[in-house]
Amino acid sequence: MAAKAPKMINEDLLETVKRLIEKDDKEALAKLVDEMRPADLADLIEHLDQHERLYIFKILEPEEAGEVLVEIEPPVQDKLLEELDTEDILEIVEELDSDDAADLVRDLPPERAEEIISTLREDVSEEIRKLLPYKEDTAGGIMGLEFVSVLDEATIGDAIEVLRKKADEVENLYHIWVVDRQGRLVGVVSLKDLLLYPRDQRIRDIMNPDVISVNVNADQEEVVHLVKKYDLVNIPVVDDKGRLVGRITHDDIIDVIEEEVDEDISYMAGVIDEEIAEESTLKISKARLPWLIVCIGGELISALVISRFETSLQKILALSFFFPVIMALGGSSGSQAAIIVVRGLATGDISMFKLGKRVWIDLKVALVNGLVCGIMLGLVIGTWLSNYELGLVVTIAVVLIVLNSGLIGSAVPIIFKKLNIDPALATGPLVTTANDILGLLIYLGLVTTYLRYAA
Amino acid sequence: MAAKAPKMINEDLLETVKRLIEKDDKEALAKLVDEMRPADLADLIEHLDQHERLYIFKILEPEEAGEVLVEIEPPVQDKLLEELDTEDILEIVEELDSDDAADLVRDLPPERAEEIISTLREDVSEEIRKLLPYKEDTAGGIMGLEFVSVLDEATIGDAIEVLRKKADEVENLYHIWVVDRQGRLVGVVSLKDLLLYPRDQRIRDIMNPDVISVNVNADQEEVVHLVKKYDLVNIPVVDDKGRLVGRITHDDIIDVIEEEVDEDISYMAGVIDEEIAEESTLKISKARLPWLIVCIGGELISALVISRFETSLQKILALSFFFPVIMALGGSSGSQAAIIVVRGLATGDISMFKLGKRVWIDLKVALVNGLVCGIMLGLVIGTWLSNYELGLVVTIAVVLIVLNSGLIGSAVPIIFKKLNIDPALATGPLVTTANDILGLLIYLGLVTTYLRYAA
Repeated sequence: MAAKAPKMINEDLLETVKRLIEKDDKEALAKLVDEMRPADLADLIEHLDQHERLYIFKILEPEEAGEVLVEIEPPVQDKLLEELDTEDILEIVEELDSDDAADLVRDLPPERAEEIISTLREDVSEEIRKLLPYKEDTAGGIMGLEFVSVLDEATIGDAIEVLRKKADEVENLYHIWVVDRQGRLVGVVSLKDLLLYPRDQRIRDIMNPDVISVNVNADQEEVVHLVKKYDLVNIPVVDDKGRLVGRITHDDIIDVIEEEVDEDISYMAGVIDEEIAEESTLKISKARLPWLIVCIGGELISALVISRFETSLQKILALSFFFPVIMALGGSSGSQAAIIVVRGLATGDISMFKLGKRVWIDLKVALVNGLVCGIMLGLVIGTWLSNYELGLVVTIAVVLIVLNSGLIGSAVPIIFKKLNIDPALATGPLVTTANDILGLLIYLGLVTTYLRYAA
Repeated sequence: MAAKAPKMINEDLLETVKRLIEKDDKEALAKLVDEMRPADLADLIEHLDQHERLYIFKILEPEEAGEVLVEIEPPVQDKLLEELDTEDILEIVEELDSDDAADLVRDLPPERAEEIISTLREDVSEEIRKLLPYKEDTAGGIMGLEFVSVLDEATIGDAIEVLRKKADEVENLYHIWVVDRQGRLVGVVSLKDLLLYPRDQRIRDIMNPDVISVNVNADQEEVVHLVKKYDLVNIPVVDDKGRLVGRITHDDIIDVIEEEVDEDISYMAGVIDEEIAEESTLKISKARLPWLIVCIGGELISALVISRFETSLQKILALSFFFPVIMALGGSSGSQAAIIVVRGLATGDISMFKLGKRVWIDLKVALVNGLVCGIMLGLVIGTWLSNYELGLVVTIAVVLIVLNSGLIGSAVPIIFKKLNIDPALATGPLVTTANDILGLLIYLGLVTTYLRYAA
């Protein structure tokens, strides 16, 4: 294999490519493209206009086109697939790994998908039909059918022969799996051991029977959990009867980790299903508007709350000056607690057995921070309004507000988790708005009580 | 190797273990512990009290103790190391992989670290001294010294012999690397190829010269970037002269990915260096207070801004009812833009060549969302105050506020990135507070101008 110069994307390269396309210089372009790795080519393609993307795609060999296509960001991939000929897509799909092929077909409009499946080479369409029924976010939805397995009674020599037959098909091969006559997964052997033991050694004598696998219907979060916990490099997938049915590789696992983080971060950002690489104004608006509208609804309740305290505000208008700081303190301390708990639940750093303890810790933290902030703010407001009694009332209010939002911030994600709702939702508008409303209620309620009593 | 029953942590197991410790039944405990995988044992230990943790640690063999220790969450690990005898630590460190050993020593108080290094077996202390100088968040800081390399003129048979010698030391071996006589990395061979080609084949004839490596001083973010982009399972580390000096394995890469995400999420949460598994109230308070105090400072500026518009508020007190919704709209739309841009910059989904375009997209989104929200809020406020002219003014204010925070939200992370400041800081208090202040200023400024003109 010839060394590919690690041609990575930069302004010059972009310019050169655009110029070559404009000049319709297929030869020079083919040469340049040939020197690039698929991932870099994908990068390049993402930076081009649609007609330039299609132009480059047409000069790629099907195998390379496939490798490039799977590396391209989903929004751009979708746009490309829309305009590629069915013929081209067929050639590409036949070159892809089974999991990538199934993903690609899954993303197509149903009619086009059916057309492609029914025209594909039979072995390929059979694999895709096998994978399509699995939900996208399950082990079955991310597994590939490319793996090497042998019977436990085989010898190392037999295993190497199996491997030789599958060598082209199965990339990134680090382990072979051992099955019994019913196809049930019973062990794992590393390629290192295949190299070091004599060829007539029985597999069953050198295999590790403690092989960690995942059920085909398990959520992809479970896959990530197992991989991270046991430092796996790939994980075999089994059906309900323990039979080996697929393999999930390290790169797909990293993709899932990123995907899960993207999802949590989307909730934190208050967006719904926004692809980060999305460029369509309307799609992004659609992802972001729902939260903003919830915000308007929720904060109009805040407005109602405030309006109930009109008398106090008429007496001391300056009370309204401090709405922002009151809201910010409640909001920030609440989201600090919520985001840490959500992340901890996602990574497993916060144990499901210690949830009560976690809320308790957050309450203690809230008490300390509430006191510090309350005293600071009480002093400022007391001085500002030349009324230290009122300052003391604010101090008490801040302590209660921070305690309240610390409780909501840590407890709500935990309750959501128990109810099987995504805890990350607790970092979103519902909780934030609830904190705002309750915070203003505590502040204005206490101050009003004080004013009534002081009068 | 005997199969370990996959004994995972649950309430029953916890109870059993606690009871056995109380009864001082070392034998039963040793048996139970022996049936668990290191990662599960680490889980178990995290759930115990400190004296119970030490009790279990004392019954583990040094090798197992090491495997368990590296799986334990940092806050618990630190507490354990504090109370383990130097003798025990020495035994453990000698069993660890070089990178884990260096990490462990790095976390110890300097005096104790020096004591341990000077007492360790010489080959181990030499390795640690080699790794310690590298900064923790660089390739050198996460690499291990366990890898297998051969000269390009070697045969496969030679390579297997090298591998045999290092087999015990190097776990998770999937590739061997090829170096020239100067030790420079020139290629890579997969174990699959070692198995499939005849033993007298020259390595240089089957190696892939397109081997992706990372410089020992590169930031760990660069490591993650390369691994994700090129779907690597491990990555060789080279010095400035291109000489192979270490290896970063897949499990360490996943750890770094998690660490980088943790860091970004911490900034989003507004906490500084908070370990998610941290349980000390004071440490958590210390991580969270700074933001809260910045909040107070910033929002007191908001208070000053509001106080400048006292006359308008005295005229229409109800204007203050809508501070929360004004702030929430600015804050939410700003953080939506900021968090997506920060995440996109972190994953590379947002290209450094399209930053101007990114800001432009966010401005268009802000215009659409600002119009929708502005019209909604304008109608509500117009109806509430029976003043649709004022409602129209609010509509205009909301459009400007959402535009402003969309601009700040997308531009500030990008500017930070260009200035080599962590863009995630832009999701923090500075930007949020700036949005609050500017939002209130726009709202009250426009309304006041209108009131003056209307009067």
